[in-house]
Amino acid sequence: MSRFWSKLVKELTPYVPGEQPKTDNLIKLNTNENPYAPSPLAIQAMQAASNAKLRLYPDPESTDLKACLADYYQLTQQQVFIGNGSDEVLAHCFQALLKHDKPLLFPDITYSFYTVYSQLYQIDYQQIALADDFSINLDDYCIDNGGVIFPNPNAPTGRLLGLDSIEAFLKQNTESVVVVDEAYIDFGGQSAVTLVNKYPNLLVIQTLSKSRSLAGLRVGFAVGNADLIEALERVKNSFNSYPMDRFSTAGAIAAINDEAYFKDKCQAIINSREWLSEQLTSLGFDIVPSKTNFVFVSHKSKPAEGVASQLREKKIIVRHFKQSRIENYLRITVGTQEECESLITALKEII
Amino acid sequence: MSRFWSKLVKELTPYVPGEQPKTDNLIKLNTNENPYAPSPLAIQAMQAASNAKLRLYPDPESTDLKACLADYYQLTQQQVFIGNGSDEVLAHCFQALLKHDKPLLFPDITYSFYTVYSQLYQIDYQQIALADDFSINLDDYCIDNGGVIFPNPNAPTGRLLGLDSIEAFLKQNTESVVVVDEAYIDFGGQSAVTLVNKYPNLLVIQTLSKSRSLAGLRVGFAVGNADLIEALERVKNSFNSYPMDRFSTAGAIAAINDEAYFKDKCQAIINSREWLSEQLTSLGFDIVPSKTNFVFVSHKSKPAEGVASQLREKKIIVRHFKQSRIENYLRITVGTQEECESLITALKEII
Repeated sequence: MSRFWSKLVKELTPYVPGEQPKTDNLIKLNTNENPYAPSPLAIQAMQAASNAKLRLYPDPESTDLKACLADYYQLTQQQVFIGNGSDEVLAHCFQALLKHDKPLLFPDITYSFYTVYSQLYQIDYQQIALADDFSINLDDYCIDNGGVIFPNPNAPTGRLLGLDSIEAFLKQNTESVVVVDEAYIDFGGQSAVTLVNKYPNLLVIQTLSKSRSLAGLRVGFAVGNADLIEALERVKNSFNSYPMDRFSTAGAIAAINDEAYFKDKCQAIINSREWLSEQLTSLGFDIVPSKTNFVFVSHKSKPAEGVASQLREKKIIVRHFKQSRIENYLRITVGTQEECESLITALKEII
Repeated sequence: MSRFWSKLVKELTPYVPGEQPKTDNLIKLNTNENPYAPSPLAIQAMQAASNAKLRLYPDPESTDLKACLADYYQLTQQQVFIGNGSDEVLAHCFQALLKHDKPLLFPDITYSFYTVYSQLYQIDYQQIALADDFSINLDDYCIDNGGVIFPNPNAPTGRLLGLDSIEAFLKQNTESVVVVDEAYIDFGGQSAVTLVNKYPNLLVIQTLSKSRSLAGLRVGFAVGNADLIEALERVKNSFNSYPMDRFSTAGAIAAINDEAYFKDKCQAIINSREWLSEQLTSLGFDIVPSKTNFVFVSHKSKPAEGVASQLREKKIIVRHFKQSRIENYLRITVGTQEECESLITALKEII
């Protein structure tokens, strides 16, 4: 700490991302990356973008990518916001739309960056406890609030809420913004994007880091009513005019346009997830039903933290959160089928 | 405006960047981009980075790029902060180091994003008038303050402050952070980076957008005492764990390592600037002495705004700021020698 720090910076407890090991000889199942390469068309587009035009600023509005997403979801460009990963989109969203006099609501077990953003922007928040089976009950959110945010499916639990529950909630909660953070929606859920024209207070956030295999590129986006998007643009244009480099837009557009590749890889991950869940069950693990590219599991007799370190010794890394209610759970990313098999082999030795 | 917007977002007046035209048939001298392509080694490195590893998150710490810059400036990695363009670095800096009870000081004519950041983070500020010749007199800043920031050379004026003046000021101003924003330092100035080990309150910010021809890649950095850098890391890690994609670090490292190319292109721009300044003088323009890749000029009889629109008709774009004290000036980026010659030909027709 230093006398030169602002008061705010002294009070922050920054987010700690999952480990990004510097070596290649590990099976990395700790940060929910896609085990498959990005679309070959995306790789080609980014290779082509490595040219003399990099001397020029990118389009500050990311118009082409907005047009591509608007077309994909049958919306207008004014309903799309682009950011440097969905984390940046979320940050702007907290500052622009979720900071009000009444408290912001989100689950007690969820993406742990939400409390960090709340600190950063000094937003009053209230955490709503998940049910014992880790499901979100949106009836619990029908209280006075300045905004509501939850991931669907939720992380790190993997549990999905049906679109009907979300719509029922939107019918009741009309006076504050509802953000549905859909980082994992493509692995078996139904997106709330189809509801944005009906509910002017609904904002849906997605990322290209998971289902599009582009965690290394940093592209996220939000869709919603043009009024909500304008609030995000105002913050973005008061923070950084050009958050998206020339590679991000080129790679993202090509990835979104390669629908066949996208569907194929999502299905491969879903298949491995189902196989992995069966195997883990037969090894004595309890599995929270997952519609994501990870499983959230707890063993009947082996403490989670010990299993994580024993896996680490076998060069497999998974994520363990030292947090009340979930300290005996492991979040395990669904890898390739081969990686899933190596994991099961290792767990058989451990258990 | 919408009832869903936060109070802050309603009050913002976002920054307006220079136009990024969608057509290629313009001579673009409006946003101070480098007229030369990035180093061929950087382009190669970015082509090579377009690979299957994009499925993985980047290193959240940008360790390799920090090591490269630390080595280049003979500092430690803990003295280097990396951001998504120097605009993001500046934004974090305003929030982490320049927000205090006393007012932040900066020039009245300067990078216009400073007032925007001050609004965004609700920082009290005081603008100090430049002298009539547009020079910064740091004696005027020897008053009670919560921080000081100025570009060196200043923009949009192009005027340089000598390192001796900056050091003399640092000897007096020891109780608040002094940020020297060196976006244009490589075109004839002496960097204050050599002073960071001597003054724990000095932070120097640079960008790869200008002298390294990588505006399209979005890489900026700050160097200073490890305590100041830690404050920036704390904000960054409360905002976005992974602001730098895999291309940014690969391209930046290769560009910094290609010193010969860098020096050669900076010198070419300096030569064109000197030629351009002579030609503009002989056409009746007053030129503010520039140590940047642009010139800030005013014509004895032709109003600036009219000259800008006549140039635009001739497919040359320059920047005009509708701002008190400088409404009769144009900021003209130094292009290639050929572009400079086309500009002079066009101006001869206009004047």
